[in-house]
Amino acid sequence: MLLTGAEIDQVAGLLSLRERAPFTLYATASALSVIESNSVFGVLPPAVVARRTIEPGETHVLPGNLRAEFFAVPGKAPLYAEGEDPDTMSETAGNIGVEICAGGARLAYVPGAAAVTADMLARLARADAVLFDGTLFRDDEMIATKTGHKTGRRMGHMPIDGIGGSLEALAGLRARRIYIHINNTNPILVDGSPERARVTGRGWEVAEDGMEVAL
Amino acid sequence: MLLTGAEIDQVAGLLSLRERAPFTLYATASALSVIESNSVFGVLPPAVVARRTIEPGETHVLPGNLRAEFFAVPGKAPLYAEGEDPDTMSETAGNIGVEICAGGARLAYVPGAAAVTADMLARLARADAVLFDGTLFRDDEMIATKTGHKTGRRMGHMPIDGIGGSLEALAGLRARRIYIHINNTNPILVDGSPERARVTGRGWEVAEDGMEVAL
Repeated sequence: MLLTGAEIDQVAGLLSLRERAPFTLYATASALSVIESNSVFGVLPPAVVARRTIEPGETHVLPGNLRAEFFAVPGKAPLYAEGEDPDTMSETAGNIGVEICAGGARLAYVPGAAAVTADMLARLARADAVLFDGTLFRDDEMIATKTGHKTGRRMGHMPIDGIGGSLEALAGLRARRIYIHINNTNPILVDGSPERARVTGRGWEVAEDGMEVAL
Repeated sequence: MLLTGAEIDQVAGLLSLRERAPFTLYATASALSVIESNSVFGVLPPAVVARRTIEPGETHVLPGNLRAEFFAVPGKAPLYAEGEDPDTMSETAGNIGVEICAGGARLAYVPGAAAVTADMLARLARADAVLFDGTLFRDDEMIATKTGHKTGRRMGHMPIDGIGGSLEALAGLRARRIYIHINNTNPILVDGSPERARVTGRGWEVAEDGMEVAL
């Protein structure tokens, strides 16, 4: 099990893995500190579920002979752990991406990104598949739909569309590109919507439950 | 939202209710202390999700004009919060049952019980429906299936079958009786099994997803 952060949607599933089946939990120090300081995760006793700290820049060999390299991604601390004036663009908040290599193929997994740095772009450029943060289509989408009062950027997520959005930032990639981590307000979820047409027209796919990616 | 304890299967669902929809969370002081001390539950800010402490013996009127009365049930602290030598039969560990009354009908909900006390029996005797702890069929079931090393009683759950089991303890009830909180090792889940036949032959039903109970 590999955690790229400690948002609820990244850690809550651990609570469903409490059948005493051994596995190793890889996570940044900040994500592991959340696991350690929240007693509910005690249902995964360290004697059964080993913890391994990972840091951006490190490479680990995971079961199945997968080579995983971790890299820093601008983002922010989890909502429940942020202070009054959170830094939404830090590269040190425990928010990471992972590049997984096996059999000569490379997949990059970046479920949360506030921006695309030059380092990230170089890494994504060599990938065969990129699974990328598709939280919101427009930065003010949750405000416009009255489902929230924050912009995507305030939540540490760059939008898909618009200036500085991921459609623009990642237009030059050769990889198969797939939006993941899609909020329920995002109109790309609606088959036939203009927004769906816009992302598929730019070569992107929209992830769905049970999707398999063969490289 | 009403918590009868703070086991993972009782509290983890709260993490899926973080859309800033206001509601009130009713729970014992010990369950609320788990919510307060685990930072992940900060996704339910008190300004949106009000906390109300309930104690056995108290009656509260819940939305929908339901009258809810809470009563002590022998049980134990959640697994992740238990010490070296947990008391599995305490009535003060924050493990409760709830009797819900509306329109002259009464339903008792007891998802975890280490034993049936005389007080509990008097209360269940007046109910029209009893939803009761069906964790294990036999006390040593998890040991026999090699899925665990604890008896049901060690986990704070009386078995269905055998001496002191719920079939025996609750044989005299007039209520519609339904087993809930059924572990995946419990053979009553298997349609056509001898164990299923034994509980249905004694007048019990086995709960299933989407079940509706009209009184």
